[in-house]
Amino acid sequence: MLVIKLGGTEGVDFAAIVRDVAALQQAGEPLVLVHGGSAEANALGEALGHPPRFVTSPSGFTSRYTDRQTLEIFLMAVRGKVNGLLVEQLQQAGVNAVGLSGLDGRLLQARRKGAIKIIENGKRKVLRGDYTGKITDVNVNLLRLLLAEGYVPVIAPLAVSEKGEALNVDADRAAAMIAAALGAETLLLLTAAPGLLRAFPDERTLIRRMSMAELDQAMEYAKNRMKKKVLAAREALEGGVGRVIIADGRVAEPVRRALAGHGTLIQGRV
Amino acid sequence: MLVIKLGGTEGVDFAAIVRDVAALQQAGEPLVLVHGGSAEANALGEALGHPPRFVTSPSGFTSRYTDRQTLEIFLMAVRGKVNGLLVEQLQQAGVNAVGLSGLDGRLLQARRKGAIKIIENGKRKVLRGDYTGKITDVNVNLLRLLLAEGYVPVIAPLAVSEKGEALNVDADRAAAMIAAALGAETLLLLTAAPGLLRAFPDERTLIRRMSMAELDQAMEYAKNRMKKKVLAAREALEGGVGRVIIADGRVAEPVRRALAGHGTLIQGRV
Repeated sequence: MLVIKLGGTEGVDFAAIVRDVAALQQAGEPLVLVHGGSAEANALGEALGHPPRFVTSPSGFTSRYTDRQTLEIFLMAVRGKVNGLLVEQLQQAGVNAVGLSGLDGRLLQARRKGAIKIIENGKRKVLRGDYTGKITDVNVNLLRLLLAEGYVPVIAPLAVSEKGEALNVDADRAAAMIAAALGAETLLLLTAAPGLLRAFPDERTLIRRMSMAELDQAMEYAKNRMKKKVLAAREALEGGVGRVIIADGRVAEPVRRALAGHGTLIQGRV
Repeated sequence: MLVIKLGGTEGVDFAAIVRDVAALQQAGEPLVLVHGGSAEANALGEALGHPPRFVTSPSGFTSRYTDRQTLEIFLMAVRGKVNGLLVEQLQQAGVNAVGLSGLDGRLLQARRKGAIKIIENGKRKVLRGDYTGKITDVNVNLLRLLLAEGYVPVIAPLAVSEKGEALNVDADRAAAMIAAALGAETLLLLTAAPGLLRAFPDERTLIRRMSMAELDQAMEYAKNRMKKKVLAAREALEGGVGRVIIADGRVAEPVRRALAGHGTLIQGRV
């Protein structure tokens, strides 16, 4: 079982990923795809006069502040367009993909944050009315039901709160939770970089292999979005996933290359 | 088995329908919902500077000309937002809904029209590059798989072509094809009118019951969008659906009222 997280639409080559996915599926590999879509959501928000607002948490993570209007923009751009176009490309390649979000069938259940703590101009503030969440449960039965019939689930990073509200969730961490719930052998995080770099952005400092024990240290030198991938890697490995690979999604044959040893390989407990 | 077609967002009361659906599902009734979303798609197209273009066929049907950009707007507004918000409302009412479009799992397979014949200023023309289709097959196995596990499928009116392209399809006729494929007892078409009117818009001319044989005549006096509902009713009944009800979606308890005998009841072959 392989879970692949694709970036949104920035730089990552959907067509090349789709070709690899089609070949793997024909070879009988059960697959689940999880995607992002921030770039599309940002562009749609700008076009509709409601640009994104990014906030930084006290622990240094950057995330999107998701008011209700932003959530609806996210539904349109990510659940509607990015997911739909990816399913369409997979169908064109002969892969019987089924697009889902975490809202559907309560696939990803999350605890709504509601109020988030942020740092703004060096000061701590609390922002209310936020529609983001932290995933607590995965409805793995729905995924197994579809996988058993040969469908490839393609999952948009939304979740459902206990009250049934749609929530925006981080796609890397969603992929990690899904991989853990499925007991996947491999979680592949494709990104617009060759892997985890010890001295970003110097690509010569690519880390080829690391152990779970080294992830704490990696949180120190991981920059920007890569922090979330390191966190996702830890969550996946702690959840029982065999290995996490962080690899380049911008190259030809990105999935094959990653499985053949390119990128950063993080081994779980053996 | 009951298939319910909801209008888009114009006038039809989603919250009231959701309450009825929750009660029916708790009573053990297997249900499938199909929705429209033209109003949302039009509004999004306007906001993005790509307003809808409506065309009239030689036989008098009005439809949306769907170029590639319109198709993507449709993915966002209908598959993303209308479907997402409906699934969210159902989840809030305790119904485990799964949003799908016809693209997902090749649920609705269609023949792409590509070029459409239209009448413009009294002249016949051919418009190319159209992404609409006529449904040819329903993947009923996917629906049965979900229904057997207690999920309520909520279907956005998109289909997939033989080549895997996403296509815009008419939601009333999609609901009819789905009801026929499932062998549903009832297809309920909720709309912003009390039913089929012999002299539109005079609501005192509501037709309470009619037979399949009277549908030909109904095509004469049905106006605007109601023509497609009459066509959908015929397709459903010819496909083996027990009865079609065209009823008011703007009232309190719209589903219960329709099942209790309000609206226009069209009986199939007994």
